[in-house]
Amino acid sequence: MQGKTISQLSLGEKASFQKTISESDVYLYAGVTGDFNPAHINQEAAKTGPFKERIAHGMLSAGLISAVLGMYLPGPGTIYLGQELKFCAPVRIGDTILAEAEVIEIRADKNIVRLRTRAVNQEGKTVLEGAATVMPPK
Amino acid sequence: MQGKTISQLSLGEKASFQKTISESDVYLYAGVTGDFNPAHINQEAAKTGPFKERIAHGMLSAGLISAVLGMYLPGPGTIYLGQELKFCAPVRIGDTILAEAEVIEIRADKNIVRLRTRAVNQEGKTVLEGAATVMPPK
Amino acid sequence: MQGKTISQLSLGEKASFQKTISESDVYLYAGVTGDFNPAHINQEAAKTGPFKERIAHGMLSAGLISAVLGMYLPGPGTIYLGQELKFCAPVRIGDTILAEAEVIEIRADKNIVRLRTRAVNQEGKTVLEGAATVMPPK
Amino acid sequence: MQGKTISQLSLGEKASFQKTISESDVYLYAGVTGDFNPAHINQEAAKTGPFKERIAHGMLSAGLISAVLGMYLPGPGTIYLGQELKFCAPVRIGDTILAEAEVIEIRADKNIVRLRTRAVNQEGKTVLEGAATVMPPK
Repeated sequence: MQGKTISQLSLGEKASFQKTISESDVYLYAGVTGDFNPAHINQEAAKTGPFKERIAHGMLSAGLISAVLGMYLPGPGTIYLGQELKFCAPVRIGDTILAEAEVIEIRADKNIVRLRTRAVNQEGKTVLEGAATVMPPK
Repeated sequence: MQGKTISQLSLGEKASFQKTISESDVYLYAGVTGDFNPAHINQEAAKTGPFKERIAHGMLSAGLISAVLGMYLPGPGTIYLGQELKFCAPVRIGDTILAEAEVIEIRADKNIVRLRTRAVNQEGKTVLEGAATVMPPK
Repeated sequence: MQGKTISQLSLGEKASFQKTISESDVYLYAGVTGDFNPAHINQEAAKTGPFKERIAHGMLSAGLISAVLGMYLPGPGTIYLGQELKFCAPVRIGDTILAEAEVIEIRADKNIVRLRTRAVNQEGKTVLEGAATVMPPK
Repeated sequence: MQGKTISQLSLGEKASFQKTISESDVYLYAGVTGDFNPAHINQEAAKTGPFKERIAHGMLSAGLISAVLGMYLPGPGTIYLGQELKFCAPVRIGDTILAEAEVIEIRADKNIVRLRTRAVNQEGKTVLEGAATVMPPK
């Protein structure tokens, strides 16, 4: 269980992880983070909101990005330095989200790698985009 | 259960939420996101890693920031547009994390607000910093 | 994060919290309390019971009352002394429950407050009613 | 899986259920109910509170009473009508709680039974007491 070192990474390299977001995912996420915003856990309030139903926390989808980085690219041993996130569209309960990362910059002298990160739903719509900065394992 | 509109917000306004991060938080978060990076859920592997023990997912602490925005400032009805995150220090199991947000920019014409966001542990050490962009409820 | 002291409370003051009760709520609650009564977690047995489907534990709704008292009215620092509960109607999976508390008696000499407590579903039907006795924070 | 009918119950009959309350029980309970009162999930805040450490939600122990009624006495098929609760002492993380119920009144004409209910910690200290009203299965 050891990820890729910086010399094993190449520009354009990609990895992804896909999961259907269940109601229980949203509820457990609320329970862990304390984020009981009615948009996520109150169907009656959500009906009258902009999305007409409960949606997943945007930061939950960001967790799928973190999964790609920490498990596959670069993988175990990676230290997460930073992440920029733009929430583009809502994730609804039952949506299947593909999170992916692509190496876009390699700074071997500092052991730092930048990756373009994105999450897309089952209809191909981008729900989340941004970039990650990580230190691959040595 | 309605958050503050842009006209009710003022520069420098702050809100926070504090929680002790338990082992079960880390495990449930792993289960929801699929982020089974050994650094978080494998004590034997973590012993030989940079932090010598399992640490919480950085993105889990980002969820506490999301809780502050969605529940308190601006609060329910807020639409999360973006977040920049810099992971500054590890969060260990048992750490008590204070997440806070402070209004730093108000663009009333576009109904967009920027907040400085930060998470600090029980020793006052910053573990996470960055900025959020949100649309307050109308 | 400090609740109201007794001198800050007034008769008739109210607070509430609302949540849609999910199947995962019922299952996690069963797992925490050990209450695996078939009425809650066995759909086949529940079909032949009085409610024709699985229902949430009555005491789960009582937990939403506890949330109102401990988080909002009086809020953090409150000591819970007692609760009377009358279970009036079943809560079905997917129901959205509004729990509310209203100050009905203030005994400043003993630092004790009584609140009328109630939980109502999305159709306005009362599912739980009773009264709470608490000591507000000093 | 069918509980006792009223004619199968006798005055003085008892049943109990015992469980060690873990940190994850308290955290999951908070996540289900939304009760993130700092007394339960914030070790730093709890240190300065009346109990000097995080304590379990009082209503969580009440859930163990519900387990006794719904699983053992009278058991499956029971309809829970009401509960009076007096919270006598804090339950700390790691405490082992014995919840018990004893039949104290049988009203065969109305198919209603009253039980004395109590929860006791591993040192024999009563943490919760009260009475339950139920309809046994027919």
